[in-house]
Amino acid sequence: MSANTTSTKGRVLLAYSGGLDTSCILAWLIEQGYEVMCYMANVGQEEDFDAAVIKAKGCGATKVFVEDLQREFVEELIYPAVQANTIYEGVYLLGTSLARPVIARRQMEIAARENCQYVSHGCTGKGNDQVRFELAYYALKPDIKVIAPWRIPAFYERFQGRKDLLAFAAEKSIPVVQTAAKPWSTDENLFHISYEAGILEDPDVTPPKDMWKLTVDPEDAPNTPERITIEFEQGKPVKVINASQKKEVTGGLEIFLYLNQLARQNGIGRLDIVENRFIGIKSRGCYETPAGTILRVAHMDLEGLTLDRQVRNMRDQFVTPQYSNLLYNGQYFSPEAEFLLAAIAASQKTVNGEVRLKLYKGNVIVEGRSSKTNNLYDMEESSMDVQGGFSPVDSEGFIKIQSIRLKKWGLNKKLI
Amino acid sequence: MSANTTSTKGRVLLAYSGGLDTSCILAWLIEQGYEVMCYMANVGQEEDFDAAVIKAKGCGATKVFVEDLQREFVEELIYPAVQANTIYEGVYLLGTSLARPVIARRQMEIAARENCQYVSHGCTGKGNDQVRFELAYYALKPDIKVIAPWRIPAFYERFQGRKDLLAFAAEKSIPVVQTAAKPWSTDENLFHISYEAGILEDPDVTPPKDMWKLTVDPEDAPNTPERITIEFEQGKPVKVINASQKKEVTGGLEIFLYLNQLARQNGIGRLDIVENRFIGIKSRGCYETPAGTILRVAHMDLEGLTLDRQVRNMRDQFVTPQYSNLLYNGQYFSPEAEFLLAAIAASQKTVNGEVRLKLYKGNVIVEGRSSKTNNLYDMEESSMDVQGGFSPVDSEGFIKIQSIRLKKWGLNKKLI
Amino acid sequence: MSANTTSTKGRVLLAYSGGLDTSCILAWLIEQGYEVMCYMANVGQEEDFDAAVIKAKGCGATKVFVEDLQREFVEELIYPAVQANTIYEGVYLLGTSLARPVIARRQMEIAARENCQYVSHGCTGKGNDQVRFELAYYALKPDIKVIAPWRIPAFYERFQGRKDLLAFAAEKSIPVVQTAAKPWSTDENLFHISYEAGILEDPDVTPPKDMWKLTVDPEDAPNTPERITIEFEQGKPVKVINASQKKEVTGGLEIFLYLNQLARQNGIGRLDIVENRFIGIKSRGCYETPAGTILRVAHMDLEGLTLDRQVRNMRDQFVTPQYSNLLYNGQYFSPEAEFLLAAIAASQKTVNGEVRLKLYKGNVIVEGRSSKTNNLYDMEESSMDVQGGFSPVDSEGFIKIQSIRLKKWGLNKKLI
Amino acid sequence: MSANTTSTKGRVLLAYSGGLDTSCILAWLIEQGYEVMCYMANVGQEEDFDAAVIKAKGCGATKVFVEDLQREFVEELIYPAVQANTIYEGVYLLGTSLARPVIARRQMEIAARENCQYVSHGCTGKGNDQVRFELAYYALKPDIKVIAPWRIPAFYERFQGRKDLLAFAAEKSIPVVQTAAKPWSTDENLFHISYEAGILEDPDVTPPKDMWKLTVDPEDAPNTPERITIEFEQGKPVKVINASQKKEVTGGLEIFLYLNQLARQNGIGRLDIVENRFIGIKSRGCYETPAGTILRVAHMDLEGLTLDRQVRNMRDQFVTPQYSNLLYNGQYFSPEAEFLLAAIAASQKTVNGEVRLKLYKGNVIVEGRSSKTNNLYDMEESSMDVQGGFSPVDSEGFIKIQSIRLKKWGLNKKLI
Repeated sequence: MSANTTSTKGRVLLAYSGGLDTSCILAWLIEQGYEVMCYMANVGQEEDFDAAVIKAKGCGATKVFVEDLQREFVEELIYPAVQANTIYEGVYLLGTSLARPVIARRQMEIAARENCQYVSHGCTGKGNDQVRFELAYYALKPDIKVIAPWRIPAFYERFQGRKDLLAFAAEKSIPVVQTAAKPWSTDENLFHISYEAGILEDPDVTPPKDMWKLTVDPEDAPNTPERITIEFEQGKPVKVINASQKKEVTGGLEIFLYLNQLARQNGIGRLDIVENRFIGIKSRGCYETPAGTILRVAHMDLEGLTLDRQVRNMRDQFVTPQYSNLLYNGQYFSPEAEFLLAAIAASQKTVNGEVRLKLYKGNVIVEGRSSKTNNLYDMEESSMDVQGGFSPVDSEGFIKIQSIRLKKWGLNKKLI
Repeated sequence: MSANTTSTKGRVLLAYSGGLDTSCILAWLIEQGYEVMCYMANVGQEEDFDAAVIKAKGCGATKVFVEDLQREFVEELIYPAVQANTIYEGVYLLGTSLARPVIARRQMEIAARENCQYVSHGCTGKGNDQVRFELAYYALKPDIKVIAPWRIPAFYERFQGRKDLLAFAAEKSIPVVQTAAKPWSTDENLFHISYEAGILEDPDVTPPKDMWKLTVDPEDAPNTPERITIEFEQGKPVKVINASQKKEVTGGLEIFLYLNQLARQNGIGRLDIVENRFIGIKSRGCYETPAGTILRVAHMDLEGLTLDRQVRNMRDQFVTPQYSNLLYNGQYFSPEAEFLLAAIAASQKTVNGEVRLKLYKGNVIVEGRSSKTNNLYDMEESSMDVQGGFSPVDSEGFIKIQSIRLKKWGLNKKLI
Repeated sequence: MSANTTSTKGRVLLAYSGGLDTSCILAWLIEQGYEVMCYMANVGQEEDFDAAVIKAKGCGATKVFVEDLQREFVEELIYPAVQANTIYEGVYLLGTSLARPVIARRQMEIAARENCQYVSHGCTGKGNDQVRFELAYYALKPDIKVIAPWRIPAFYERFQGRKDLLAFAAEKSIPVVQTAAKPWSTDENLFHISYEAGILEDPDVTPPKDMWKLTVDPEDAPNTPERITIEFEQGKPVKVINASQKKEVTGGLEIFLYLNQLARQNGIGRLDIVENRFIGIKSRGCYETPAGTILRVAHMDLEGLTLDRQVRNMRDQFVTPQYSNLLYNGQYFSPEAEFLLAAIAASQKTVNGEVRLKLYKGNVIVEGRSSKTNNLYDMEESSMDVQGGFSPVDSEGFIKIQSIRLKKWGLNKKLI
Repeated sequence: MSANTTSTKGRVLLAYSGGLDTSCILAWLIEQGYEVMCYMANVGQEEDFDAAVIKAKGCGATKVFVEDLQREFVEELIYPAVQANTIYEGVYLLGTSLARPVIARRQMEIAARENCQYVSHGCTGKGNDQVRFELAYYALKPDIKVIAPWRIPAFYERFQGRKDLLAFAAEKSIPVVQTAAKPWSTDENLFHISYEAGILEDPDVTPPKDMWKLTVDPEDAPNTPERITIEFEQGKPVKVINASQKKEVTGGLEIFLYLNQLARQNGIGRLDIVENRFIGIKSRGCYETPAGTILRVAHMDLEGLTLDRQVRNMRDQFVTPQYSNLLYNGQYFSPEAEFLLAAIAASQKTVNGEVRLKLYKGNVIVEGRSSKTNNLYDMEESSMDVQGGFSPVDSEGFIKIQSIRLKKWGLNKKLI
């Protein structure tokens, strides 16, 4: 069957994963009268892209695009997030959110180039990802039309469970890999993997040991610690040194992949939480973020040495939570993201130096830090033993002035 | 020598530690013509209070007060900090800051009762503690007069090093314990111990293994994890259950001490940072905060299940950093602390439930959480598999409306 | 025609205004098979309620409820907003938003009492009010069902303009008042009136002089100023004194209505802006907020005298914008509103005293303020001429300590 | 007497005003053995600079520098403040604070060039200005030494009142202008004038009509309004058009001075408040800020039309209060100011367009606004009458999704 001859409704660029869901969506869209092209983004997930291309073509896709976005993912999304210490609800490092902008951007570029009036994706109607993809689509290409089958009654009423999808796959001769479906769903990229749904929906169920895929269990990690040094320029990692292995790694992507390898071996980066989705639903998620966890510890530590107190305080109190929420809520392509990224860049000029780390069974332990170019830290001035930098008498005045307001208040309150 | 007959300048209540510094201050104040009473606060530090009382009296103190403040420290200071997830500069749990208000308050109460016009302390002129103690003093008793010898030239120029203090101690017959002085200084209470100064002043020097006092090195901690359940009511811990040991602990102080014991055994709560002191100096500090680290993980996790997203977001973005900074800067007795504590209490009404934890070699791992009284989490609603709670079509409208503003912006920017 | 016998779909409580739109909605709902009861909230708008009741009954309403909500509007919504200095986007005093919660709450109470499964309103599908009403409905009565005809294609496609409504009114024998429709729409209550749409949609069109309804044009206001004193307790007005008229007004509602009268006479409270609606659309609105404008000036002035600097700063920086946004976005019945209202109340304990004002041709001019119970202001201490309260030498230390950090930065930057 | 031959302590650059205080300081510094150079900054205050130069030289200054800083004051300090809508405690436009950085910077430049080891000023020990000047000095030239006579006991104990200064002036043959001293003190520049101290220290005393210097009393302003148009580029004014006078003004300084003239004639910009000084004292101040008041109204209005909602919200909630506080507290030369100014610039890219204003007896009334380059405002989209841009059905989904969280909360609370 040639899609070109029968498609009457226009051309769709489908974000395709190679799995059962998006293969069925692909076939269903063709059935509905669309020409369908498939788009696969390589953001570092474990995937047989060649097999997926064959499968997509077999299902009737007129073209299939596989795009390697790993480097731009690391350099454009992950490293600014490291600079900003982004974190959602105090714990989650935003691995899914960070990948969405690069995926959506390339999809829109291809949609524009290939004259696709439509894009489609396999996100459900209850999650965050539908929002993240579509807000990015609309910002980047305001005239794009989105087909979200899991929000279309004709689709979701027809496919009410895996059984219905398998039956449709059989009908359409879509090959199905005979693996036992895991009792949870995952999303993977080079920054993290997420686990949710299925047995995880009960927030009091401990994830089974064999669920965790990227990292070794801390209990099974080596008994001997690994020691590395990470060098930062303007808040971004530029070198990792592993002296015991006589290894130096440079290059944005290369550094990240090397840290991933070390973190995975040492059981670093697991998380199990209940979080608040953008649409107002609480949801349980488990995550592994190996390299991201190391970089967060190292970057925050270096900021202690090299970043001014007030800049840090302002960045922490405003920019970090706002930028983190914005990423989570899918608003990376927005005027406010531009605004916040200008502030993030402005905050990192002095964040230059090295952090020495020990990695051990889930722990990322700072063993020291230094900076050649930055002299905000002054050993003599902070010394309790040396009279340097200022007179202790000055502290007296500092405290007395601070106390003026509190004394007035105390007089009113008569606290004792 | 009777202080009563020779003191002509008035009565001082000295915050006394039993160590060399405050013993010399005690003798020096008497030499200057003051009557001196000594005050020792028991906030859970390791200390031989009986020996200290004898020593103080031997030095000429007319009275010595030893006050057990452990319970009020835990219940009035630590647990509200747990409720607020207080943290300074993203990493430090504020152990020294949290103890200061209870210590200062009792000192002012005794000063009022004993008609002391003066109080004195042994804090240096470069640190945070002088500020914390004195702002508390002035707020609680605005007419108090403070003698801070380490800011008085006549004192600090006379005692320029340990040698001068030892000579003075010999002259005044102050007994000196013959221990080798450690190459750092510490401050200890039941919440934490801090290490700073000395060899730690070089931020690239790794603390020696034998420095850490409260916790076992994670590398030396047991190879078998410990599992516990912590129950919270309105954000405060009310019970700890250790099923394998058939142990249940209740009572604010008792819970805290039991968690300390478990955390110490499992190498939990070490920290090594460069922080910004209130007076604008960067300073390197190492800390051990055993129970506080466990409680932070557990409380934040339970908030995921039981706290509304917007309340959490507002509390996180404003109350937590403001209250943390305020504690660090010694402004607990202040109108703004009253204001923030009202907000903290208002935020915790729904934070009820249990968290199950695994403690293992420095890690605090959440294994599950539940809440009997709270139904903000709805398994069916968050399920990706079940159509429940709302129609996927609603998400379509939600996204479309969110996109209006971004489309307008995108049209202006022509991003693709 | 008896609604009781023919209505098969259930009972609706319609928010009824007496105008053409909601009268047509009333008739249309009956036509669709619903029993309809009407609800009119008196929040101080100019309205012939008796005529509206007759009209609603004539259209087929089985019951009509007219509820006087003026006092609860002032005391529960307006005065907390005065305490918080609420303002949207720096200029708008939120008059429409403030009325919605009291209107929606009574509607839900009646819906519950009268066993109405449905409620309905006449809000359009592009504005803020649909959001405000419905979020309140759902929070107060989560099982309520909402019929919003202007979002139902069968309705809005049938009634595409005023002509269609008039034709339907004629068909249903709905009496239509023969006034020329104004080229803008309004929403009025005792706090304010809003004007939008029609000729105002061009943001560069100056509103015609005869549009403004509540206030006299400042150019036409009296040439002689009016002077009053407003007394506040905990941030709420408790008395207004007009000495020249030998008049004292007390009582929450009475004070508000009296200030409205004075403000209207003196041309106070006009505003013309472009604002951002919740749904992301920019919209031009004109407003008159007479008493609210006076109270804002007076309350903020008294806070200068009576509120601690840090509490003010925290409240200004966080609570005021968050609470203002929340009101604008219709989230008054929410956990975060409860949280913020606790903080607002905590902030106002010391805001007690009097403010003397001059009202003149659009200006609200403060002429003095005083507080009997509050002594945070200390004339001697702030005097530049008197050495009181603290030593100037203390300021030296204060500045020196503040400069430590800046000197370090300056050394790095070499600014000169 | 030649200062050059007798000065043994080094060279001082004194910030000199030409008045009694700084003339006495000049003579006193020479008496103490310093060589003194004088520095006068022209920031638009009313002053006879030529007479002051003669006076300073007569008192013994070895050099006198008069520097015209008006243009850099307007362009580097005032316009970024307009962009940020800076305001202190909700009402004060920061006129004194804004002038300090340009004054201090030139003083440090001259001190460096002329090899002055010292600078001196006539600020009191209780005010904000000592902090503002000295923090700027120390940041710009960390090794500068500051002589603040009003904080030196030898000085302030000798000169306890105006009488002592007059006696010293007579002794030193310093000419004194025979004007009656006003019962308040002032600080003037082209942005504003401040009045404080003296009779104003009682916050309930209405300022006398003849105190106000820059603006006409609104009651005496013209009965006919003045109409102007202000054009902005990236948030800064670039043109003022007065059509009735066929006048167009361009140039940063020229625009500001022209707006000052119009505002003064129309009684615009008076303020009377109690504010919180940096050092924690409450203080009463009266201010006239003519052009600044017009520009604030116009700029905020244009942002309504041209600035994205989220960027505005973030800027308002964080950048504006932080930058305002920082200016007030004298921390313009700081890393955090650099950080905030980067954010301010990033926020203003789209703030381009015109605002039409009516000036009338103290009122600044917006009559319309437009923007040729910005299309965030969409007349059709915001129209209540037109179905454009999006479907009303989308709003339904938007509201439903927003309500999920609130329904859950409502079910728990059972509000009705």
